[in-house]
Amino acid sequence: MTLKNPLDMHLHLRDESMLELVAPYSAKDFKAGVIMPNLITPLTETTALKAYKERILKACKNEDFTPLMTLFFQNYDEKFLEQAKDEIFTIKLYPAGITTNSDNGISSFDIEKLKPTLNAMSELNLPLLVHGETNDFVMDREANFAKIYEKLAQNFPKLKIVMEHITTKVLCDLLKNYENLYATITLHHLMITLDDVIGGKMDPHLFCKPIAKRYEDKDALCELAFSGYEKAMFGSDSAPHPLHTKECCGCAAGVFSAPVILPVLAELFEKNSNEENLQKFISDNACKIHNLKFEKEKIITLEKNTWQVPQKYGDVVPFMAGKTLNFKVI
Amino acid sequence: MTLKNPLDMHLHLRDESMLELVAPYSAKDFKAGVIMPNLITPLTETTALKAYKERILKACKNEDFTPLMTLFFQNYDEKFLEQAKDEIFTIKLYPAGITTNSDNGISSFDIEKLKPTLNAMSELNLPLLVHGETNDFVMDREANFAKIYEKLAQNFPKLKIVMEHITTKVLCDLLKNYENLYATITLHHLMITLDDVIGGKMDPHLFCKPIAKRYEDKDALCELAFSGYEKAMFGSDSAPHPLHTKECCGCAAGVFSAPVILPVLAELFEKNSNEENLQKFISDNACKIHNLKFEKEKIITLEKNTWQVPQKYGDVVPFMAGKTLNFKVI
Repeated sequence: MTLKNPLDMHLHLRDESMLELVAPYSAKDFKAGVIMPNLITPLTETTALKAYKERILKACKNEDFTPLMTLFFQNYDEKFLEQAKDEIFTIKLYPAGITTNSDNGISSFDIEKLKPTLNAMSELNLPLLVHGETNDFVMDREANFAKIYEKLAQNFPKLKIVMEHITTKVLCDLLKNYENLYATITLHHLMITLDDVIGGKMDPHLFCKPIAKRYEDKDALCELAFSGYEKAMFGSDSAPHPLHTKECCGCAAGVFSAPVILPVLAELFEKNSNEENLQKFISDNACKIHNLKFEKEKIITLEKNTWQVPQKYGDVVPFMAGKTLNFKVI
Repeated sequence: MTLKNPLDMHLHLRDESMLELVAPYSAKDFKAGVIMPNLITPLTETTALKAYKERILKACKNEDFTPLMTLFFQNYDEKFLEQAKDEIFTIKLYPAGITTNSDNGISSFDIEKLKPTLNAMSELNLPLLVHGETNDFVMDREANFAKIYEKLAQNFPKLKIVMEHITTKVLCDLLKNYENLYATITLHHLMITLDDVIGGKMDPHLFCKPIAKRYEDKDALCELAFSGYEKAMFGSDSAPHPLHTKECCGCAAGVFSAPVILPVLAELFEKNSNEENLQKFISDNACKIHNLKFEKEKIITLEKNTWQVPQKYGDVVPFMAGKTLNFKVI
């Protein structure tokens, strides 16, 4: 099986030694990745963004990998955005405190307050990526955010809005109702439900935000991905945390999937769909949505060859740790 | 505040060194406890049950505490039950594999198959305690068991059926519809929802079965407890697990609340209800339901005096670890 220019449209690479540990796995298998800006100090300035991009490229060594940089959403003025435009791919909006390092996110979805920035983004054709969760009961947070997505989609019809890492049928349906709504879907949300997290023993390595939901939600996500639906893009939300922050009394949210994504997706699509739809999900849809073009093609070849996922990469337990996979990137 | 003969109607004391560690906390504060039979080898014989009772009494040292012994449900014949009657207080039914050490539980609720045992129990006035969960999606397991409770209640009208550690509004409502249905409620389910388990960081020490549910479920449980509702009894489901089986990659289910129960309940009832209703919830309701009488009264006095809950008792992290409580048992 071959994949052309695989793209990870939602990727956490962290910084410093963790960046050095995890970046090579994404860089090896992907042509590009949309890099999340929620570092401990969120990326709100182009200088910091450019410096982070340099650190990423260094950590990726000589791999053919493009970091598509993302600014942390704040109220920016048009002049700033115009100047920053060439350095950034998108802007990512976090509701305050909703996930890892999001305390500086926004606390009100008052359209009037958001208008200057979002109108400027519309004009400049800068997409808005959104972590769409309210502060409600954990199982309702994403579905309850649907009304905010609707408000944004209606008020900013020219703005490309990407609903990140969607996990509910409600948002799968919403995607089809508004032309300017798009979505990314993770690998793990195609595979697990809340039962895998807390239904048997509790598994901190499958604890993530948004939390995995019900079977009907997973089925709706799979339907979008496996059909190659044009508004759904792959975004891993691969989010490494050291072991001692997972197997502890206050476990951090995040699944580290980077090293296993393509082999696992290949197996899932082989069982449920076809290679053409995987090509759409992993690259073509995103290229069309974001008008992405690459000078040089990166072709990834997967062969049928079993291998066992390591229990740890450095100090990070990966998704599918210890499992035997049937496809291997060569 | 004084409490007369506090009863813990659902208690896990384990065995060996864990028994020796945890039993004294229940024995100090309670007059009696209903002892769960899901040891690694489930208690299905009176010899084993008597030996376990002896070990419990030894672990409780000289405290005035009565272990009310519970047999692990299987299809028992009437003759066996007649002979066992004086040794056992109740029989506890587990669906197979539903929680810790329940693999030998029953896998079918075919009324015809259950009839011989349940009819014999009705005749002998032996109550049936039930862990009421199906194998469905984790948030639906208890509510989906309601139909089985109804079937049991309808088919065995003379059988006293206790719905153990209820966590949903559905069962709070069901309790009022059938004369022969009763319920126990834990301390932690009066205080937490799924948000406390996985809504912020993930907390393995609040992971239990049944899992804590929604706010409206917690509210319904509180309404029963704080009103002193006559068919609701306190049962802690205090279930100790060593730290290394909680803060790990496959965390065991159970909350160890024994050392903090009465102080925390005192504070909850002071805020939300009154002492008389706490007396009903913690003892009087159970005494009436099960016709329990004690020769000697055990009076527990709580004074207003702050203390900090230890981070650990032996190798077990307790409920409310590190928190400051305002009542103290003297």
